[in-house]
Amino acid sequence: MASDDLTLADVGEFALIDVLAQVFVASARPSVEVGLGDDAAVLAAPSGRLVVAVDQMIEGRHFRRDWSSAHDVGRKAAARAMSDIAAMGAVPTALLVALAAPGSLPLAWARELAEGLATEASVVGASVVGGDTAESPTLVVSVTAFGDSGDRALVTRSGARPGDGVFLAGRLGRAAAGLTVLSRGHRQPKSVVAAHRTPEPPYAAGVAAAAASATSMIDLSDGLLADARHIATASGVVIDLDRSLLGGDDDVEAMARNFGLDVWEWVLVGGEDYGLLATFAPEAVVPAAFRPIGRVSELREGREGPVLVDGATHRGAGGHEHFMPPS
Amino acid sequence: MASDDLTLADVGEFALIDVLAQVFVASARPSVEVGLGDDAAVLAAPSGRLVVAVDQMIEGRHFRRDWSSAHDVGRKAAARAMSDIAAMGAVPTALLVALAAPGSLPLAWARELAEGLATEASVVGASVVGGDTAESPTLVVSVTAFGDSGDRALVTRSGARPGDGVFLAGRLGRAAAGLTVLSRGHRQPKSVVAAHRTPEPPYAAGVAAAAASATSMIDLSDGLLADARHIATASGVVIDLDRSLLGGDDDVEAMARNFGLDVWEWVLVGGEDYGLLATFAPEAVVPAAFRPIGRVSELREGREGPVLVDGATHRGAGGHEHFMPPS
Repeated sequence: MASDDLTLADVGEFALIDVLAQVFVASARPSVEVGLGDDAAVLAAPSGRLVVAVDQMIEGRHFRRDWSSAHDVGRKAAARAMSDIAAMGAVPTALLVALAAPGSLPLAWARELAEGLATEASVVGASVVGGDTAESPTLVVSVTAFGDSGDRALVTRSGARPGDGVFLAGRLGRAAAGLTVLSRGHRQPKSVVAAHRTPEPPYAAGVAAAAASATSMIDLSDGLLADARHIATASGVVIDLDRSLLGGDDDVEAMARNFGLDVWEWVLVGGEDYGLLATFAPEAVVPAAFRPIGRVSELREGREGPVLVDGATHRGAGGHEHFMPPS
Repeated sequence: MASDDLTLADVGEFALIDVLAQVFVASARPSVEVGLGDDAAVLAAPSGRLVVAVDQMIEGRHFRRDWSSAHDVGRKAAARAMSDIAAMGAVPTALLVALAAPGSLPLAWARELAEGLATEASVVGASVVGGDTAESPTLVVSVTAFGDSGDRALVTRSGARPGDGVFLAGRLGRAAAGLTVLSRGHRQPKSVVAAHRTPEPPYAAGVAAAAASATSMIDLSDGLLADARHIATASGVVIDLDRSLLGGDDDVEAMARNFGLDVWEWVLVGGEDYGLLATFAPEAVVPAAFRPIGRVSELREGREGPVLVDGATHRGAGGHEHFMPPS
């Protein structure tokens, strides 16, 4: 049997771990005191604290093997978890990877997944320092990301104040457009398909936002309205988005028209763009990666909210939520 | 509909997160700078480093809902991950939990799972500080555990030296006995069924071993022979176990006889006992939780190994390995 035809059931767990470890060791960083191959990894935390987040990608739910390569899935799994670290204003430094996979999974797919994970980690100088493998009917890639914030204050969801500006780093609606393209049997335009397969979180913008004293921040995973609601609720404010500042991607608008769809559903509700939504006080010097898209105002009894578009609640789907039937 | 009958599909992801957060917040610890409800959690790492490990429990593979309660599954998922932290000689301080679950999962099951996770974490003063939820055909509970080692040197798998003694904290074969009992349709003896459902890792023994300068350590998850092999291979030595020092649980021996099974398969090969296997130099003052079970000797060309029982390679199954058919 050619080695490319081997499955996990052919080689077993320990050989799988060897293959993954070879990929990850090749990208190991000196900040790791104990890396792969022991009961646990040991991370340096020179600032005396560590930022941590976990995120899962589940086959059939978050990716399809006929729509994304293993390398794509690895890159996206790492990007999603590291995006959460960036959204706190920290720099991702290390990843742990838990892989649950059926025995029928090709060993080559697992190797390419590892290469994708290591590739995305290397974008920010991070590395995979350990993990776990187990047999499962459903393929699940779960990534725990670790980040260092140095001496900067961390940016939570709860610090937005009335009068702050609302800013966006990244683009909107492109991942949803890409998913629509794929689900209708097409493979292009490539730029939006790539936005779905391998989102590119603006990691550096997260650090810059923290350095510029952003008052709140979140990464755009659930969709703009849903994620703005997370900030508004945590901060006890209203976020008012300005529709004229949200559009701008002509190709995506044209695509929506071709499909007979409303581009605003992609822009406002479509998730997985992995940009950063942040608020800054009026006097802040906002980093260049961010553009203004709205304002924070006071929460008032009887007024609509907590997220408004041009002063009114958006009527339409509410964004992605797991376990619920699509709305 | 009574609230106990609700499923995740009835309430959706955000309500599920609220329910889990209520359980976890009730057990939150002051060492957490930012806990649940943000993009990431922020852990204090006063010693300048953090020990990290991830472990997965998959329905049908690691647990069955008709054999274990949700509370049991939560306790065991936390115990398995924290056992890896203890095996480095560190104290578990925090957990992240990734839950992948079908929409048909009762909300009450998820709540009890969270209670079990929080309960086990509280055994060592740790708490659940964050996580992720997603819809999946297969129920997967993935736990990332964090630990603090203070000023102690960490204990890896690779420091065993010829002449060291081999020591065990915990008992052997009881979890495998419990699993056999359950798989044959019985629910007792309760002590061995409990060993399968809710193992109790000797967390304090891990810290004590590090303080007593253990030369190597591992937790017993794959089975005594397989885990001893991990130490022997990483250290480049032979581990020779003394069969007369391994037995001793008369009730388990009697159970094996009743089933017509060889108790040594449970003791040597049966995994998931979550004791600690450690090596100590001859002059070490070994903590009371450990008892001697063998010796470390030199790896020599042409000699059997790397793990021997009474001087010879054990003929039989090799321990549990994912993806491979049972041997």
